[in-house]
Amino acid sequence: MPKITRVDARLFRIPLSEVLSDAKHGDHTHFELITATITLDDGSTGTGYTYTGGWGGHAIVAMIQHDLSPYLLGKDATNVEYLHDEMRWHIHYVGRGGLSAFAIAAVDVALWDIRGKALGQSLVDMAGGASDRCKAYCGGIDLNFPLPKLLSNIDGYLARGHNGIKIKVGREDLGEDIERVQEVRNHIGPDNAFMVDANYGLDVDTAIRGARGFEPANLTWFEEPIDPDDFEGYEKIAANSDIPLAAGENCHSVHDFELLSQTGALAFMQPDVGTCGGITTWLRAADVAERHGLSVCSHGMQELHVSLLAARPNSGWLEVHSFPIDQYTLQPLRVEDHMAVAPSSPGTGVTFDWDKLEAAHQSSS
Amino acid sequence: MPKITRVDARLFRIPLSEVLSDAKHGDHTHFELITATITLDDGSTGTGYTYTGGWGGHAIVAMIQHDLSPYLLGKDATNVEYLHDEMRWHIHYVGRGGLSAFAIAAVDVALWDIRGKALGQSLVDMAGGASDRCKAYCGGIDLNFPLPKLLSNIDGYLARGHNGIKIKVGREDLGEDIERVQEVRNHIGPDNAFMVDANYGLDVDTAIRGARGFEPANLTWFEEPIDPDDFEGYEKIAANSDIPLAAGENCHSVHDFELLSQTGALAFMQPDVGTCGGITTWLRAADVAERHGLSVCSHGMQELHVSLLAARPNSGWLEVHSFPIDQYTLQPLRVEDHMAVAPSSPGTGVTFDWDKLEAAHQSSS
Repeated sequence: MPKITRVDARLFRIPLSEVLSDAKHGDHTHFELITATITLDDGSTGTGYTYTGGWGGHAIVAMIQHDLSPYLLGKDATNVEYLHDEMRWHIHYVGRGGLSAFAIAAVDVALWDIRGKALGQSLVDMAGGASDRCKAYCGGIDLNFPLPKLLSNIDGYLARGHNGIKIKVGREDLGEDIERVQEVRNHIGPDNAFMVDANYGLDVDTAIRGARGFEPANLTWFEEPIDPDDFEGYEKIAANSDIPLAAGENCHSVHDFELLSQTGALAFMQPDVGTCGGITTWLRAADVAERHGLSVCSHGMQELHVSLLAARPNSGWLEVHSFPIDQYTLQPLRVEDHMAVAPSSPGTGVTFDWDKLEAAHQSSS
Repeated sequence: MPKITRVDARLFRIPLSEVLSDAKHGDHTHFELITATITLDDGSTGTGYTYTGGWGGHAIVAMIQHDLSPYLLGKDATNVEYLHDEMRWHIHYVGRGGLSAFAIAAVDVALWDIRGKALGQSLVDMAGGASDRCKAYCGGIDLNFPLPKLLSNIDGYLARGHNGIKIKVGREDLGEDIERVQEVRNHIGPDNAFMVDANYGLDVDTAIRGARGFEPANLTWFEEPIDPDDFEGYEKIAANSDIPLAAGENCHSVHDFELLSQTGALAFMQPDVGTCGGITTWLRAADVAERHGLSVCSHGMQELHVSLLAARPNSGWLEVHSFPIDQYTLQPLRVEDHMAVAPSSPGTGVTFDWDKLEAAHQSSS
């Protein structure tokens, strides 16, 4: 029974090479990587992590250090799902989703890393093992890129072997969004998958007009058109347009996924390990999606989600996110014949290059 | 246009005089008080705060310091509701309720304190001014008190001039809960209001059996019998028993209150300024309650909620919580003829005794 003897949380604030913008969060200049490394009394370790768009990292680290670590020390690391649920209840009063889902996620991923290494199993095997690869698309954070730059950025994605791309929408003038969408479709031709993402920057009526305006471009989905808490709005958009809807990155508990699924408005569910509470919650969310007949996709964290999507029978598309995480891990995402290939090494398959992270880190103030 | 020049967040971990227990959180040995003091360029200040049951305080302070403060500095403090909503969206990605509601609460209360002082208005006047007083009951955290201690603790509440009391339920054996409830009713007689609170420690079937077993004791309400996210469970309990149900302390956004109200299962809604995002959210929750025909009550923070409940036409009962906050403020709660009386001073009416807080503070590790 290996016992937990240490939990080390670290925050890295990593600059982006250029300012990336979307409709509701505005400009991104950095992303935050929060790591949790758990050490057992037999010397074995596992590392988990979560990201943010630049805010909340200090609070997540504080929660891991002051609230989760005291609970975990001395516990048997074997029973990951039990520890996950106990952590959730331990901080339920201040948690119940929200930021606590990020803190629990980092710890939960570390526990799965330990589990995989102990069993000699890869994440794809632990998560179901349906396949070793999955469909993948590149998601741009490109709302403010002028059209030529938008198109050349997409060319870069296609040159890297991808056959699916996503752009941001939600500009001041909806007509511009519709025009950019059509220009992109003309540019990439009919055979590449194409999605759009409004980051909940629109109101319901504008979203419906957008969904109708985008129809000639034959989109795979329209992501987060409106406030993720406006369930009635999602139902109204679905009832008044034909574009499949996608959402899920703002769900922080199984309950959130269940409520969103019950709207009947979605076609694609996009849980994110880092925002939903970890691998344990992600797998439960995938079950919820399956029960409601939805395809499970992902948001961010492609280096980890590739294994989960490959492992699931109801998987859709892996998002290859714009945050440059591949520069800081030892196994960049592999793409073969447009498919993303899951790592086969035991554990999560994600190993950070700590020296590079430290060199890139810029403290906030 | 007074601009915000400083935001100072502080954490105080205050020991309780004895261990207090409930069904789901276990033993409380301390409570955490997180304060946020905002200073404007004209030298005026306001102080807000939130509590926790002993966990999450470091993360809340980190969020105020690293995520809310950089947003607030330089802003005009006048437009409190605007700043509240902007803070919410600013950290929405890591927030969306949960712990961020506590951090925003402390800042929001400070902004209302500044607003009240600037206008020369008390909180009761700013919040509607329906009355200057409200009904009040004392809530024990007494699940593990043996019966004689439970009864003598209640005697203390009645001796302080109160005519309403609440005890915890959720012991291992439901029969013990039912027996304790009947003993308490026999002890306090028919004229004092009597509530019970399970802190979501029961499953649905046990809650229904409890609700039926408690019926002879003529309870005012049965609070949080089950997981606050189990809406179907709430509906089932309401459909299968006659005791009015109460909940709300775990709602961290207006959306949460709306969803809970839509179940149709509740009779009393209990928003807590410190857990729901502040005075701005509390007032919106009271509107939601009114729209659904519910009586609005409160959880914790009696020194502040007294003003909000007094001010509302649809107000029910103020909880006088067991955390000994009155020892650390300059205006202990006033009770006249069983009614709690709101302070008339400008601002929130809550002024901390910082020296006493510092003397009582015990760091966690």
